[in-house]
Amino acid sequence: MKSFFKKFRDAQRPFCTMIVAAAGASSRMGGGNKLFMPIDGIPVLARTLLAIDQVSHVDEILIAAREEDILTVSDLCKTFGISKPVKVVRGGASREESVYLAALEADSQAGLIAVQDGDRPLVTPELIAEVVRKAAVTAAAAPAVAVKDTIKVAQEGVVVDTPRRETLYAVQTPQAFDADLLRAALQSALQSGAELTDDCSAVERMGKQVFLTEGDPENLKITTPVDLTIAEAILQEREES
Amino acid sequence: MKSFFKKFRDAQRPFCTMIVAAAGASSRMGGGNKLFMPIDGIPVLARTLLAIDQVSHVDEILIAAREEDILTVSDLCKTFGISKPVKVVRGGASREESVYLAALEADSQAGLIAVQDGDRPLVTPELIAEVVRKAAVTAAAAPAVAVKDTIKVAQEGVVVDTPRRETLYAVQTPQAFDADLLRAALQSALQSGAELTDDCSAVERMGKQVFLTEGDPENLKITTPVDLTIAEAILQEREES
Repeated sequence: MKSFFKKFRDAQRPFCTMIVAAAGASSRMGGGNKLFMPIDGIPVLARTLLAIDQVSHVDEILIAAREEDILTVSDLCKTFGISKPVKVVRGGASREESVYLAALEADSQAGLIAVQDGDRPLVTPELIAEVVRKAAVTAAAAPAVAVKDTIKVAQEGVVVDTPRRETLYAVQTPQAFDADLLRAALQSALQSGAELTDDCSAVERMGKQVFLTEGDPENLKITTPVDLTIAEAILQEREES
Repeated sequence: MKSFFKKFRDAQRPFCTMIVAAAGASSRMGGGNKLFMPIDGIPVLARTLLAIDQVSHVDEILIAAREEDILTVSDLCKTFGISKPVKVVRGGASREESVYLAALEADSQAGLIAVQDGDRPLVTPELIAEVVRKAAVTAAAAPAVAVKDTIKVAQEGVVVDTPRRETLYAVQTPQAFDADLLRAALQSALQSGAELTDDCSAVERMGKQVFLTEGDPENLKITTPVDLTIAEAILQEREES
């Protein structure tokens, strides 16, 4: 029963910690940390944080950053007036490890932990809220969009399989989980040396079901320089409509 | 030997017919045919055709269009001064059938048939040439880019598998094939009622190897209205750099 009371501080919803993964190498950005590059005047990471800050379902924010960026990230939170409790923690050697280390720093009353890519600045508060709500019921949820391109499995440049497109989804973030489940799943994945590309995968490895919510085609990940231009175009479109 | 001579009219390269798939329903565009929507003043389909027209490896263009669009497409070719021989043919009930019907109309000396989505207006002449060159050697080639998102296989909203991302590629167009191989593969697929999302899949069904060439992340497919905005942003970026 302890865990029940810990996780549900009121009848409506559990305490939710949002981890922002911001310790990546920006290796495909051609120099500089993409998280601090502006989109229409506001840095990528600030846009991500501002979206999270608007979501009443989120109670605290933990940002996993590279050691050399910790001060810059703290300043950025102040500059853009992030109002929720924020802690900036040192990232690990991999994304998985960064998220795990941050998860250990979550408030002890956290029943849910969500994880957001720092480099998905166009995420909307509505999408975040929906994922957190779904995870509160299912213990594991992530937003996803139907895949538009035909996907091939290839080995050494030769196609070996074409999975049926109607069964394929591209997952985005935030991904949200029961806090204990996520910590256990990440610990297990790190111990086994499994190389994962998202947090759901760690939970799937535990044999737990992950539920998909409706993602947003505009919730793109900033990876290469052209993505900044695309993000500006999307923002402009949003303002016009 | 007949087929050898038919396919190689000179020592350098086979005759190549480019089919442009332009008979789709634009169902996700919110009204109107996306192929005639302008990107920076030039319609989507015209941009696609202008790129193809610059490729010396392509000898003729066959455009599969909806019956009601045939005149408009013909006019568009004239307006934008497409210099290669062009024929506009009536599309079928599905993309597969449209491509098959067009393939039957290819010049009898065609050794290769390539297929380009009409709604990929940012394709470059270099990319097209590379795919056609590869197909001349391998009989089946397509451009592909490494998948950036984590892809899930899901059933009824629950994740059932996460294929390893490093083995996954998003294929684009043009896809190019030995002409006889493509016709046989499409005929077989149509007869079997297989629902395919690209032309490679038909060739894969025949047990033939399909080789991937390097795709272009900017070679996007225009599907929803925001894609037009994104395409304009990419064009602007191209002009600036």
